Amino acid sequence: MWNDLIPVGRSRSTGGYRRFSYTAAEVECRAWFHQEAAKRGLVSETDGNGNLWAWWGDPTAGDAVVTGSHLDSVPDGGAFDGPLGVVSGFAAVDALRAAGAVPRRPIGIAAFVEEEGGRFGIACLGSRLLTGAIDPATAAGLVDADGHRLDDTMAAAGFDPAGLGHDAQRLARIGAYVELHVEQGRAQVDMDAPVAIGTSIWPHGRWRMEFRGRADHAGTTRLEDRADPMLTYANTVLAARKKARIAGAVATVGRVFCSPNGTNAIPSKVTGWLDARSADQQALDQVVAEVESATVSRAERDGTEVTISRESFSPEVTFDVPLRSRLASVLGDVPMLATGAGHDAGILASAVPTAMLFVRNPTGISHSPEEFAETADCIAGAEALTAVLRDLAC
Amino acid sequence: MWNDLIPVGRSRSTGGYRRFSYTAAEVECRAWFHQEAAKRGLVSETDGNGNLWAWWGDPTAGDAVVTGSHLDSVPDGGAFDGPLGVVSGFAAVDALRAAGAVPRRPIGIAAFVEEEGGRFGIACLGSRLLTGAIDPATAAGLVDADGHRLDDTMAAAGFDPAGLGHDAQRLARIGAYVELHVEQGRAQVDMDAPVAIGTSIWPHGRWRMEFRGRADHAGTTRLEDRADPMLTYANTVLAARKKARIAGAVATVGRVFCSPNGTNAIPSKVTGWLDARSADQQALDQVVAEVESATVSRAERDGTEVTISRESFSPEVTFDVPLRSRLASVLGDVPMLATGAGHDAGILASAVPTAMLFVRNPTGISHSPEEFAETADCIAGAEALTAVLRDLAC
Repeated sequence: MWNDLIPVGRSRSTGGYRRFSYTAAEVECRAWFHQEAAKRGLVSETDGNGNLWAWWGDPTAGDAVVTGSHLDSVPDGGAFDGPLGVVSGFAAVDALRAAGAVPRRPIGIAAFVEEEGGRFGIACLGSRLLTGAIDPATAAGLVDADGHRLDDTMAAAGFDPAGLGHDAQRLARIGAYVELHVEQGRAQVDMDAPVAIGTSIWPHGRWRMEFRGRADHAGTTRLEDRADPMLTYANTVLAARKKARIAGAVATVGRVFCSPNGTNAIPSKVTGWLDARSADQQALDQVVAEVESATVSRAERDGTEVTISRESFSPEVTFDVPLRSRLASVLGDVPMLATGAGHDAGILASAVPTAMLFVRNPTGISHSPEEFAETADCIAGAEALTAVLRDLAC
Repeated sequence: MWNDLIPVGRSRSTGGYRRFSYTAAEVECRAWFHQEAAKRGLVSETDGNGNLWAWWGDPTAGDAVVTGSHLDSVPDGGAFDGPLGVVSGFAAVDALRAAGAVPRRPIGIAAFVEEEGGRFGIACLGSRLLTGAIDPATAAGLVDADGHRLDDTMAAAGFDPAGLGHDAQRLARIGAYVELHVEQGRAQVDMDAPVAIGTSIWPHGRWRMEFRGRADHAGTTRLEDRADPMLTYANTVLAARKKARIAGAVATVGRVFCSPNGTNAIPSKVTGWLDARSADQQALDQVVAEVESATVSRAERDGTEVTISRESFSPEVTFDVPLRSRLASVLGDVPMLATGAGHDAGILASAVPTAMLFVRNPTGISHSPEEFAETADCIAGAEALTAVLRDLAC
């Protein structure tokens, strides 16, 4: 099952994955999902928001136990981020059946669309739409880097964008959501723990920063006559790092576009994205405010103009305490872990009792072709998920 | 004639030009050139390097007087940079004929390919090939942003790349080259001079800077565990400006690519280009050395690796002194001007007595859709060129 998915959307040059929503590679992942469901006699479906569901038992019976994750990737992402949770869901169903378990509650496996925001810029888009955290008209009008709208893209891929939006009926049928995910840091390495239980997700957000100046000739324009937005951008990159370090937060500028992007032309515009997170909401607010103020004062000096707009924001999420405790009692001596990474579980937590399981990442590296997890740890994760599903559903 | 060329390759959204070598827009400019030649009964041809030539008289007679410039553009460039010199060449032929002039020496109009390096990265590529300043095999293997090689691109556009390289026979037939170009700074505004004579081109070059780090998750990787090449890049952008200011030079980073370029991924690689120029070779060397040293020490701090390689370099060019003096005696009270911009004239100067004429730019803006020249100044430029060609050739 895992081997079928490994080559899909993998770049030959980098070894990284490019599974952007509704591209050929991601559509192939969708087909894989339906095939895996069909192999097991599970009914699979795509909801109006483009999320995938496979059901063991009748979902309309209600109080379902759902597990899953996502199949899309960041540009040149790793093999585990997302798919590990979906594959582990199918593996857990296989293990329960092999053990002769008969679920009292329906068991679902979900794969949420555009979790990474790799194509349309908003992370956890599928779960945000499902829970009503984003307006369907706003989502429909999101554009990718080539200017394609989400609704047009869905329609071209054979999905009706009229179904976008809050799906209260579907949510009401879910009694618990447990997402398994590869860890994206080194906490479990330090704790020597193949599996951990998620306690919370740090507050985090993305800010789009547009720096506007005046295109001009790089050879003949005196420095004092320039309005070069690359300088303001560069200063902001360094300020973000410094302010985050001081506040004990993390801040990253990992995406940039420059226009016209010619070697001998002073840019007219540079667009960058700030990703900032912290265990503490106040520290996060402080970082963003200080980056903004450093940028504005540098822009004055450079003669440039800056617009910083919040593109998405997720406040701190604390996972359901009774569910978390129940997982702890099932799994025994397993550590608890807060994370700086956003997940669909963080969105679903607003509507459904939700918990997470993490699988150790020996290097901590993620969002990279080098992302890795030991097979033994992946098996330990799937076994933990099996035990949790058995306890909750059987 | 000018009006026919205005819409070709112009972006509807920016108003800027995208006439990259051998693209549809540039091929249309080539067709325009041949049509303008044919209208005047001039024999036109494309040489083995892709440069265009139109001849009044027999070029094999030798000692030809050639004028011209280029038709390609930077991304979102202006209407005047390049085309003004070619259009003025045809206009000067018209004016000489209207005045009943009969040339003793053949008169040529040239349009050199890839002057901006906007597609294949090396400025003045057509004139460099013609004069042997670049090896034809190196040029053939240059690739554009989509990975297309120059030789394949030429072949696809119907030009035989086997003809690339030094063309000594063609150069030997040229007795003088005079290029007219819009000014790309504000010197002529300050001097209240619609027309100026070029004295020299500053030494200038381009350096490709590759910053390599480790892709990782932007939310879960501790700042101290990161190797983020965007930080090293940003520091280099600011260092380039500062070192140039101190040395009295100019330095610009106007082009950047980031990989994987995802909002929530620490980049694995950032590539930027440094354009540096100075009236003084020693100051230029100092800027580049200091930027390099600042970058290397920052890279140590960031845990990143940097490679800086010189992509092109043009030493100072002093235009032919007797030819310059002759222009001055023809044109009377016209100022002399050194420029920080590279031109094909700077390359041809190594092989042929060469001079330049500049037309006033009221804002100094160039390499931008806002580039502009007053019609009266363009006419003054064409009249000056006519007088020079009459003096030299008739």
